[in-house]
Amino acid sequence: MPDVSAVKALVFDVFGTVVDWRTSLISDFTKWSKMRGVKGDWTALVDGWRAVYQASMDEVRKHPERGYKILDTLHRESLEKLVAQLSITGLTDADLHHLTMGWHRLHPWPDAIAGLTRLKKEFIISPLSNGNVALLTEMAKFAGLPWDLVMSAELFEHYKPDPETYLGAARLLCLKPEQIMMVAAHNSDLSAARKQGLKTAFVPRPTEYGPLQKRDFKPEGEWDIVADNFGGIADKLGCQAAA
Amino acid sequence: MPDVSAVKALVFDVFGTVVDWRTSLISDFTKWSKMRGVKGDWTALVDGWRAVYQASMDEVRKHPERGYKILDTLHRESLEKLVAQLSITGLTDADLHHLTMGWHRLHPWPDAIAGLTRLKKEFIISPLSNGNVALLTEMAKFAGLPWDLVMSAELFEHYKPDPETYLGAARLLCLKPEQIMMVAAHNSDLSAARKQGLKTAFVPRPTEYGPLQKRDFKPEGEWDIVADNFGGIADKLGCQAAA
Repeated sequence: MPDVSAVKALVFDVFGTVVDWRTSLISDFTKWSKMRGVKGDWTALVDGWRAVYQASMDEVRKHPERGYKILDTLHRESLEKLVAQLSITGLTDADLHHLTMGWHRLHPWPDAIAGLTRLKKEFIISPLSNGNVALLTEMAKFAGLPWDLVMSAELFEHYKPDPETYLGAARLLCLKPEQIMMVAAHNSDLSAARKQGLKTAFVPRPTEYGPLQKRDFKPEGEWDIVADNFGGIADKLGCQAAA
Repeated sequence: MPDVSAVKALVFDVFGTVVDWRTSLISDFTKWSKMRGVKGDWTALVDGWRAVYQASMDEVRKHPERGYKILDTLHRESLEKLVAQLSITGLTDADLHHLTMGWHRLHPWPDAIAGLTRLKKEFIISPLSNGNVALLTEMAKFAGLPWDLVMSAELFEHYKPDPETYLGAARLLCLKPEQIMMVAAHNSDLSAARKQGLKTAFVPRPTEYGPLQKRDFKPEGEWDIVADNFGGIADKLGCQAAA
């Protein structure tokens, strides 16, 4: 049994950990494109979009003189390149905006809301995501995510896994790092959080990337908690069963 | 009928507008002092504490070189002076901390939760308060305030009524100022919000300062909405009745 008795707040990675971005976006865009009358390989678009995610944040890290860019902006810039590469034509500015805002309309994994609801009774729960504040806020309303507050990389003007994000969350909550548990489906996120002193919980999401999934099938560190889903985390933290 | 059709988010002043800080603190401290076995004029302490609130924020404005100080810190500094002035003796460091954290344990006005719950179905709702993030987050859990996110002066390192707070809220929400409505029981807060382009809603809280109340009995500007309580704001914005 790990010593997690000091934990007061759980902070969650969102894309992949709380919400199923890939299935949500492919479904959303496929339906929309039929109504809109545009054709495209939406699976290729979504996979390609996520494939350039890390590189788009690296550009922000490499060029601090250009100022911080929120994820909505990075998504839009990447999208414009991708539709050209994939020869998707006939998209207006409003269409590109609608697709970019698709990241605000993501559905949670089946266990997420029930698990968060149990955890919220005992702990402060917040996203700690690279999504910007408006994205995370709109997603929470769309998906019914019961956050106590919304913490975003935007608040710290640094993207995860930069230390400023994990330490920034501790500062805003007036907690010590060891009083916060990072919950993620990505070993790299937990590794970076642990380096800053946070507790860690791993939940595998083996279908996050669909057939392209190559990693994060299993825990790759001595995380404080490993569970199959959010309900399992609540069980291991001694939360009451759902009413 | 004012044109508030563009409004997407309502941001709330908290101390006095959402919660009854004076009655809450006097009651909390009176009960606690009996158990703790310390004597003091808790009404004088609470009124004196609030009386130095503006001056304590002015010190932060005047001395940017000293860095931003969160409200918990200002409260603690003011408290230490006040207990000496009021000859309240025998308080330990833990006691002073407990009293300071009293600002995290405030009760809402009777209409607040029902009104916020109705408004949340149609709008993004958030505090926009000088309280720090941890204070507002703990208060929301204590009082059951159903915020979508928590916006604090701390995020902008400026206290209201500095323009950075109202404009900062618009930036984080990716909204134009006129898409945000400031809700407050204080004419001065609404005046500052309107200067930055926000819509405004006034709700009087005539007992906020108890017998010391000297202002804000009535609207003193052409606010977009004036209502007796949060339910009245929901009515005027066309929100559905409570279930």
